[in-house]
Amino acid sequence: MKEIKIFAPATVANLSCGFDVLGCCLDIIGDQMILRKNNQRKLRILRITGQELALEAKNNVATVAIIAMLEALDSTQGFDIEIDKKIKAGSGIGSSAASSSGAVYAVNKLLGDPFTLKELIPFAMEGERLASGNAHADNVAPALMGGFSLVKSYHPLEVLALPSPPELRLVILHPLIELRTKDSRAVIKQQVQLKDAIAQWGNLAAFVSGLYTNDYKLIGRSLQDKIIEPVRSILIPYFEELKTIALENGALGFGISGSGPSVFAMCKGDTIAASVKEAMHLFYKEKGIDFDLHQSKINTQGIKIL
Amino acid sequence: MKEIKIFAPATVANLSCGFDVLGCCLDIIGDQMILRKNNQRKLRILRITGQELALEAKNNVATVAIIAMLEALDSTQGFDIEIDKKIKAGSGIGSSAASSSGAVYAVNKLLGDPFTLKELIPFAMEGERLASGNAHADNVAPALMGGFSLVKSYHPLEVLALPSPPELRLVILHPLIELRTKDSRAVIKQQVQLKDAIAQWGNLAAFVSGLYTNDYKLIGRSLQDKIIEPVRSILIPYFEELKTIALENGALGFGISGSGPSVFAMCKGDTIAASVKEAMHLFYKEKGIDFDLHQSKINTQGIKIL
Repeated sequence: MKEIKIFAPATVANLSCGFDVLGCCLDIIGDQMILRKNNQRKLRILRITGQELALEAKNNVATVAIIAMLEALDSTQGFDIEIDKKIKAGSGIGSSAASSSGAVYAVNKLLGDPFTLKELIPFAMEGERLASGNAHADNVAPALMGGFSLVKSYHPLEVLALPSPPELRLVILHPLIELRTKDSRAVIKQQVQLKDAIAQWGNLAAFVSGLYTNDYKLIGRSLQDKIIEPVRSILIPYFEELKTIALENGALGFGISGSGPSVFAMCKGDTIAASVKEAMHLFYKEKGIDFDLHQSKINTQGIKIL
Repeated sequence: MKEIKIFAPATVANLSCGFDVLGCCLDIIGDQMILRKNNQRKLRILRITGQELALEAKNNVATVAIIAMLEALDSTQGFDIEIDKKIKAGSGIGSSAASSSGAVYAVNKLLGDPFTLKELIPFAMEGERLASGNAHADNVAPALMGGFSLVKSYHPLEVLALPSPPELRLVILHPLIELRTKDSRAVIKQQVQLKDAIAQWGNLAAFVSGLYTNDYKLIGRSLQDKIIEPVRSILIPYFEELKTIALENGALGFGISGSGPSVFAMCKGDTIAASVKEAMHLFYKEKGIDFDLHQSKINTQGIKIL
């Protein structure tokens, strides 16, 4: 294979109770990337549409991830890359993760699959390090593996695939305000109350149980966050009002996607998701804030070849 | 039914990664209790063997739990109670929980099951409040429900039953030293590092995943505790040496049972459990510390009628 075209999906990290360890993969919303081998022993980004991003290999998350991967393979193979960014940078739904995961997935395919999907995670994380200063895995893991991913530990890195109840839907609202991941991390306190931590791990454990048992209501009751949401939600316009609207319209739970500003409503089934989406649309429209709004299944496949 | 005789099992709470939210039920190790209705409208503890414990209804965890239950029923029924305590008070394997859970289970049976097992938990928790000043549920829930219990939240109280992989075994070593639950709680810091909390909830989520998938090795890798064990293990003689011995002999994981001083080694299968038990026996014997030592399956039934 000389050339490959892929769909690199958006992802939602943290999911209220799973700060820094949990993420899931979205359907429909994602970038398109074309990668092809060149004989120049160089990584060349030929074209990026949709967003203004760095084209130099050392400053783009896609190529930084590829560099880490090629170093591990001791390879000097060159690649030409075209990226059609549909996911806005800084939206909080894994824009950088889509690029870095998509890049290593595509290169892996073009080189005959020297790595498993799980083995690609550390390379994609190098893109995250460039994007936010923090090589987190809770976006790149679900982008690569699909469904829900649990980052059990970072030292050593261990990522688990969790089951995806079939009727889960996510409604994603992206307020078009600027909120840098670095700033969004800065508001977080490095010390937490033990009682809040206990509540958090009780909820995350229950959320995992809900995924295994398709217990949608339990999943909803577990989507709580007493640690990060109280400080981070202040940065998101009308967060509390949106949450109330989502829950009143039948959402199982509501929270911040990644480090924001996007928010998510988790719902059971398309009908409820559609009415939650509609209600959030009407509310934000009235407030005069520009936004993007999506409704998605859980993408259990991850990156797809087009 | 006028009289009932039951087996009230020992339990292991916390289990390293699940401080205050996780517990499991042991087999073989437990108290025997006889309860029978009387016509005196009084709760009378006729006899306690095995341990010196308060006989007055307001000062004994069994009767305090019954009082809470009878108040909820608006009942003045009297009961005579005989307790053969096999679980030593202050051992860290749910001695008070066995008494309070057993008491409310037996009274519930004698009254024709007005409550479900889950509904009995809050009454049994009143016994825990008397014993330790803290109405925790992570011993009484598994004692009543069997298997593994997750206390998802306390406000409102929500307890989940988790699956029990069939080959799990626990080796319990109880060093015969005095360690009061209150003292053991006092060493715990009320503020924790966010990074340690993240590691803890990653491990607990992975532990739950391991229970659902019978992944014994994952269960073992998840039995880690960076928050409580470092401060509490200091109170337990030769904790680190025991841990090394257990792991070297094939245990999946090792940690403190409840608030100690008992410790547990979780193992896969009887053969490994037996060799872990033997190695711990030899080590502690040599150190000249008195101890009790047990090997147990997970008791998936909980309290049993004899």
